Amino acid sequence: MEQIRQEAREFMINTYYELGKTEEEALHRIEEVDQEIVDKGFYEQTFEELEYGAKVAWRNSNRCIGRLFWDQLHVIDKRHLKTEEAIFQALVEHIDFATNGGRIRSTISVFPQLKQGEKVRVWNHQLIRYAGYVTEQGVIGDSDSIEFTNKCIELGWEPKYGHFDILPLVIQINDNEPRWFEIPEDVLIEVPIHHPEYDWFSDLNLQWYAVPIISDMSLDVGGITYPAAPFNGWYMGTEIGARNFADEYRYNMLPMIAEYMGLNVKRQSTLWKDRALLELNTAVLHSFKEAGVSIVDHHTAAQQFKKFEEKEATENRDVTGKWTWLIPPVSPATTHIFHKPYSNEIVKPNYFYQGKPFKEG
Amino acid sequence: MEQIRQEAREFMINTYYELGKTEEEALHRIEEVDQEIVDKGFYEQTFEELEYGAKVAWRNSNRCIGRLFWDQLHVIDKRHLKTEEAIFQALVEHIDFATNGGRIRSTISVFPQLKQGEKVRVWNHQLIRYAGYVTEQGVIGDSDSIEFTNKCIELGWEPKYGHFDILPLVIQINDNEPRWFEIPEDVLIEVPIHHPEYDWFSDLNLQWYAVPIISDMSLDVGGITYPAAPFNGWYMGTEIGARNFADEYRYNMLPMIAEYMGLNVKRQSTLWKDRALLELNTAVLHSFKEAGVSIVDHHTAAQQFKKFEEKEATENRDVTGKWTWLIPPVSPATTHIFHKPYSNEIVKPNYFYQGKPFKEG
Ligand code: HEM
Ligand code: HEM
Repeated sequence: MEQIRQEAREFMINTYYELGKTEEEALHRIEEVDQEIVDKGFYEQTFEELEYGAKVAWRNSNRCIGRLFWDQLHVIDKRHLKTEEAIFQALVEHIDFATNGGRIRSTISVFPQLKQGEKVRVWNHQLIRYAGYVTEQGVIGDSDSIEFTNKCIELGWEPKYGHFDILPLVIQINDNEPRWFEIPEDVLIEVPIHHPEYDWFSDLNLQWYAVPIISDMSLDVGGITYPAAPFNGWYMGTEIGARNFADEYRYNMLPMIAEYMGLNVKRQSTLWKDRALLELNTAVLHSFKEAGVSIVDHHTAAQQFKKFEEKEATENRDVTGKWTWLIPPVSPATTHIFHKPYSNEIVKPNYFYQGKPFKEG
Repeated sequence: MEQIRQEAREFMINTYYELGKTEEEALHRIEEVDQEIVDKGFYEQTFEELEYGAKVAWRNSNRCIGRLFWDQLHVIDKRHLKTEEAIFQALVEHIDFATNGGRIRSTISVFPQLKQGEKVRVWNHQLIRYAGYVTEQGVIGDSDSIEFTNKCIELGWEPKYGHFDILPLVIQINDNEPRWFEIPEDVLIEVPIHHPEYDWFSDLNLQWYAVPIISDMSLDVGGITYPAAPFNGWYMGTEIGARNFADEYRYNMLPMIAEYMGLNVKRQSTLWKDRALLELNTAVLHSFKEAGVSIVDHHTAAQQFKKFEEKEATENRDVTGKWTWLIPPVSPATTHIFHKPYSNEIVKPNYFYQGKPFKEG
């Protein structure tokens, strides 16, 4: 309890200061919150506090290159929801609102805070994600999802054994049996991947969903943990083009693209992997633009991050960052990030990994 | 003195064990060395100790991806040299031996150890390196060399204001005035950079020297510091193609290459930087091969590093490494290195940065 009081106090001081409120207001609020914690063991944040906390948590996300826009996060307050159905509806609304016909809005939906004996979890890693199946012919779909896909099947979801099957939303309240729901198709945008010059690229039948909505991290603000608080921005192209489609343990498309390109894959020094990777990333950026879905290339993202660093400097705030995540996985040395160190100090409010809600096997 | 004794002891135990000698031999040698240190304040290593120490120092070099070949280092013992001329001659011999007509040999030359009042330093960062000049028209040559180039000019070296002027060797013994010497042209190999398909690439008039010979780090073995111990391997292509020629603060060639390629440099999302970078790296690898000069691409280097990790595991030795340096600056996520963590623990023997022998201004 001492820790909640301490973190609440610090959060209120910083937040009220940044919001330009008076010291009196801050002190008054601290007293109020302190009393609430002493009385009940927890406290409730105002919407303003929650909103600012979620934004600052983004600003403090060391692994995120997209932080220039931290102040433009849409915060949707769903802390009052108590049932799986209501939460499911809210998640669908989140998808719809964030997708916005392709003009993606950075958005977070915040569900009830963690309390003694009360816990809401969304089991999905991202709200929209493709299933992965281990079959005798090898993995089908996204191998990153294999374990969760098995869980869904155990819960009664029907596997489809396609490469791009959207997984259901799985919601758990307290220790109840988790419940799963299909996402209605009409809120989903998926982007078929074409290349601006190579027609054959379409034959690869690649597609990816429009909006990455991380749903398994907790939001930690002022001593309060929100274990269900899915948030999204828009994609940086390399996430899809240099990792999801390219990693050997994911869709592993580089060998096939190289083959279509007619590259000599026997000799590494032809740089066939780099060539295939470049065309794949070109195709991803091109396709999202063509489909009218927000996306940012890694050069522009790095420039925006530079602006973020400059803005933070003018506000006299330190920028913390995790270099190994901030550098893009394509041509990293062409960005300024590569050429400077970042301190990976963890500052709160922030988003944190949490234990998986389900166990292996 | 306690520290030298301790480090000597540890080094002897490990080295004699790895060399398959008996415990008796090790203990005998430790006693001998210990006595020498007590008597004189320092000790001399046998050639075998020095050789093994230099090799293990390479094996322990956390930033080096080339460590599979640590056991094949050629160690040249020049600890007896006392004059600048003799050291200069030895450096020229090093260049010649290591270059080997293009079939580069990993080589280190070891000059006198650091003692009270005795210190040999090679001022150059690498034995072969291009000068850099600040002029009214901007920087000419390699901006990485500007400060050292100024020093050379102060010492009487004649600047040539070309893009690829080989700097002189600058050698300092103790507190004497440093002396400079031109490297005879007949020991130098330089590689003109062509592209296998783009003829215009030759019009860029790029070239690079064949052998990177780091000469400003110290070798630290068994409590002894060798402040002059230049070592070389061969290049990994990206060092030249993704850093020396590409970095904005170095030769900054990407905009011009993109222009020759006819790319739209107004929009980052065309990935023009990545395209130019890829062709530049292709050209570097191609040109070195064509010229018969050893070079390794980053994919092959990563595979070799993987083999190194496997070999070390069979020897029950931990591999330490610095991830931020080990990942190549082109398509890093296509190598296994990107996908695992490395411990950056510093183990001795090792190569260390030392303070610059010259001061700014
Ligand atoms: C607006 C567009 C955004 C872009 C382009 C962007 C970009 C990125 C990228 C490229 C990563 C690395 C992902 C990876 O390598 O797996 C990342 C990580 C992250 N971002 Fe952002 N981001 C955006 C919005 C947001 C928002 C709105 C939040 C939270 C409110 C956020 C919080 C985070 C966090 C917590 C991580 C680390 C995720 C993890 O560890 O798996 N980002 N971001
Ligand atoms: C045989 C071929 C070799 C290859 C391909 C190779 C490759 C590399 C590469 C790519 C780097 C990073 C350079 C940079 O980013 O600036 C590096 C760093 C390093 N290598 Fe190797 N290397 C080789 C041989 C050697 C040898 C023979 C030694 C010592 C005996 C050595 C010791 C080091 C050290 C100490 C560093 C760090 C240098 C620094 O911090 O500036 N390497 N190596």
